[in-house]
Amino acid sequence: MVNKSMYELGAKPNKIRELFEFGKARAKVVGPENVFDYTLGNPSIPAPAIVNETAIRFLQEMDSKQLHGYTSNIGDEPARAAIAADLDQRFGCGAKASEIFITCGAAPALTAILRALAVENGEIMVIAPYFMEYKFFAEAAGEKLVEVSADIPDFQIRLEEVREKLTPNTQALILNSPNNPAGTVYTRETLEALGALLTEKGEEYGHPIYIIADEPYRELVYGDAVVPFIPNVYPNTIVCYSYSKSLSLPGERLGYVYVPGFCADSPMVYAAVAGASRGSGHVCAPSIWQKVIVECVKTRPDLESYDRNRRALYEGLKDIGYTVAKPDGAFYLFVEAPNGDGDAFLEISKQHDLLVVPGAGFGCPSYFRVCYALDYDTIIRSLPAFKAAYEEAKKEEK
Amino acid sequence: MVNKSMYELGAKPNKIRELFEFGKARAKVVGPENVFDYTLGNPSIPAPAIVNETAIRFLQEMDSKQLHGYTSNIGDEPARAAIAADLDQRFGCGAKASEIFITCGAAPALTAILRALAVENGEIMVIAPYFMEYKFFAEAAGEKLVEVSADIPDFQIRLEEVREKLTPNTQALILNSPNNPAGTVYTRETLEALGALLTEKGEEYGHPIYIIADEPYRELVYGDAVVPFIPNVYPNTIVCYSYSKSLSLPGERLGYVYVPGFCADSPMVYAAVAGASRGSGHVCAPSIWQKVIVECVKTRPDLESYDRNRRALYEGLKDIGYTVAKPDGAFYLFVEAPNGDGDAFLEISKQHDLLVVPGAGFGCPSYFRVCYALDYDTIIRSLPAFKAAYEEAKKEEK
Repeated sequence: MVNKSMYELGAKPNKIRELFEFGKARAKVVGPENVFDYTLGNPSIPAPAIVNETAIRFLQEMDSKQLHGYTSNIGDEPARAAIAADLDQRFGCGAKASEIFITCGAAPALTAILRALAVENGEIMVIAPYFMEYKFFAEAAGEKLVEVSADIPDFQIRLEEVREKLTPNTQALILNSPNNPAGTVYTRETLEALGALLTEKGEEYGHPIYIIADEPYRELVYGDAVVPFIPNVYPNTIVCYSYSKSLSLPGERLGYVYVPGFCADSPMVYAAVAGASRGSGHVCAPSIWQKVIVECVKTRPDLESYDRNRRALYEGLKDIGYTVAKPDGAFYLFVEAPNGDGDAFLEISKQHDLLVVPGAGFGCPSYFRVCYALDYDTIIRSLPAFKAAYEEAKKEEK
Repeated sequence: MVNKSMYELGAKPNKIRELFEFGKARAKVVGPENVFDYTLGNPSIPAPAIVNETAIRFLQEMDSKQLHGYTSNIGDEPARAAIAADLDQRFGCGAKASEIFITCGAAPALTAILRALAVENGEIMVIAPYFMEYKFFAEAAGEKLVEVSADIPDFQIRLEEVREKLTPNTQALILNSPNNPAGTVYTRETLEALGALLTEKGEEYGHPIYIIADEPYRELVYGDAVVPFIPNVYPNTIVCYSYSKSLSLPGERLGYVYVPGFCADSPMVYAAVAGASRGSGHVCAPSIWQKVIVECVKTRPDLESYDRNRRALYEGLKDIGYTVAKPDGAFYLFVEAPNGDGDAFLEISKQHDLLVVPGAGFGCPSYFRVCYALDYDTIIRSLPAFKAAYEEAKKEEK
C-alpha cells in the first residue's frame, strides 16, 4: 500500500553508491591510497575563506531570530536583490529580485520548474549525455523524457534530431552547460541555431518551448572557454543555479531559479514555480546561507587546482591513447571506452582499483565519466592503472 | 502552458502574508510598538548558545569538504545515529539510525510521506483544527483530504466521526500534537481509543492505516502536560519532526522522518519516502546543521519566556471573557471569536491594530489563532486592544 513508483525510485540501487562501497572495501585490502575513485562529484577545493568567515561573523553578531528565522518562501529580499544585481552586472540581462526564487540547491529548482511546466502529455527533451537524475525528476512530475542522442565526439547538439523529436507536447528542453558528464560547453553558435529552431517550432505550435538552463557548473570553466548566458541568446530560458560547485558548498543547499522578465508568461511561470515548491514542502532555503550570499555573491572559486588536475588527466589519458571529450568546464572528463562499452570497461578497470562511472546512465553507453575533483597526487598515481585498463580493454575490442 | 494547479497554488494570496503587510503599513502610521501582530509562527527565543557555538567551532576547525560536502541522501550516519539514540533513550522505542531519514524540515518530511503513501483514490484524514498547508500537500500528492470536524471546546478527537469517515481508501491520518493552531495535546486516552479504532478498521480493510505524527512542537510543552510518543501507543505511526521550534532554527531547515522498524511494511515505507524525496529534488539536508545536531541532539529549548507569555495571555484573555482552548503546548492560543466568526472578528480587531489568524483556514471558522512567541511587554500592552475588540464583537453577536 505504498506508491509503487516512489518505492522503486527509493529502492533502486544507486550505481555510484555501490562503487563507493566497493572502493571502501578494497581500501581495507590494498590501502586507501591505492584505490582511485573517480566516481563522486564532490568539490575537492575548500569553500572560499570569506564564506566561512562571513558565516562565523553572522553567528557571533547577528540576532538569532534574524539569522535563523524563516525567510520569505521565495527567498530573503536582500539575497534575491544581490543575486539579480550580480547577474545583471555580468550579463546585462536586467534581472530583478522579483525574478529570482531561492531554492535548496539546483535539484529542487529543477524539479519545481518541471512541475510548473507539467501539462497533460507534456514532454521534456534532454540532450545526451545528461545528468541521470533528469529522468526521475521528469517522471516524478508526470512528464515524458525525450532523449536526443549524443553528438559524438564533439558533444554539441544534433539539431536535426531535435527537430525530428520536437512535438506540440514539448514543453521544454533541459540544457546543462558546462556539461555533466561531458565537461563540454555549448558554443554560442550551437545555442543560436537551437534558439532559432525553438522559436520557429514554438510559433508553429502556438506556445513557447522553454530552455531550462541547468547551470551549477557555470563558473567552473577553464582556459579561454566562454559560457554564453543562455537567456541572452534565447529569451524563453529559465535558469536554475546552485552554489554547490562555485562556492564548494554542495551539502548546504543553496541555489535559485531565475525566470527572466522577458521570457514568455514570466509572471505565470514564476508563480507556478512557487506553487510547485510549496506543494513539495519547500519553506525556504537555509537562512544562514541566504544571509552569507549577500556578501559573497561576487566570490568566484579558485579554479587553479581543478585546472591543474584537468590538464594532467586530459594529457595523461590522451598520451595513453584514450579519446576524451573537449574538457572546457565542470570537473569531469568524458572518455570513450577503449572496448566501446563503458559498463564492460568498468569491470576491467575495477581489477585495477580504478572506479569510473559508465556512460549508459547518461545516455551514452560507449563512454565513461571520471571526476577529477581529487588530489593531484592521486591523479598522477592513477595513470598506470588507466594504462593497464586501456591495454586490457583494447584486447577485448571487437 | 503552465501547470494550472501549481500556478494557482503559487498565485493564491497568503492571508498571513497580507496581514503582515497590513501590519507594516500601520506601523508606519501608529508606530511599530502599537501594532500587535499575533499572526506569525516564528520562534521568539534565540537558538540555544551551544548551537551557534558548535557551528562556529566547526566552521573554524572542520575540514571544508567534510563540513560542507554532500552527505548521504538519507542523512549523515552520525546524525541519524544520534537522533535514533536520543529517541530510544527518551521513549524506549528501539529507534535505529536506519529508520531515520533526515530532511529539510518537517514540511518536506510530510510531503515525502504523503507521496510515499499516495495510491489511486488514496485519502488522507485530518482532524480540525489543522495546519492549513496539509490540504495543499495532500492535493499536490494527488490525495483527497478528508476532514474530521473540531471537537469544540476540548480539541481532542471526535472518534465517531473518524469511524464514519474512514474508508478502504484511507491511507493515513495526520495528527499534530501539540497542535497548531489549538495548542492542545492529545491525551493518551484519546490516542489509545484512536489506535484501537485504526487497528480494527485496518484489519477490516486488509491494510494498515498509518498515523502520520507531525511533531514540530513535541518539546514545546508546559506545566505538567505530557505528550505521549505516538508510535508507543499505535505502532503503525510514521513521525515527522523539525528542529525549527525546539532549537529556534526555523529558517535553517533541519528535520527528519522516523519510520519505526515495528510499523507495518517499514522498509518499504522508508524506501518510498526516500524515492519521493529524490523525485522532489531532495539531495540532503543542510550539512552544517546535520553536523551540529550530533552534538546538540539533547539540547532542549528554554521555555520559560514562552510559558510566561502563555500564562499572561491566557489569563488576560480569560479575564476579558474569551473562551480559550487548553494551552498545553506549542506557542499558540486558539480562541473563540466573541461574535462566533473568526473572519468577522479580524475585521474588528484590525481596527485596534490587533492582528490574529481567523480559524477558517484551520477548519474551525468560529475561532481565531494567536501566536504568543512575542515580547512579554507587547503581550501585556495588547490586552486593552483584546478587550476593546471583545466588547465590540460581543455587540455584533447574533
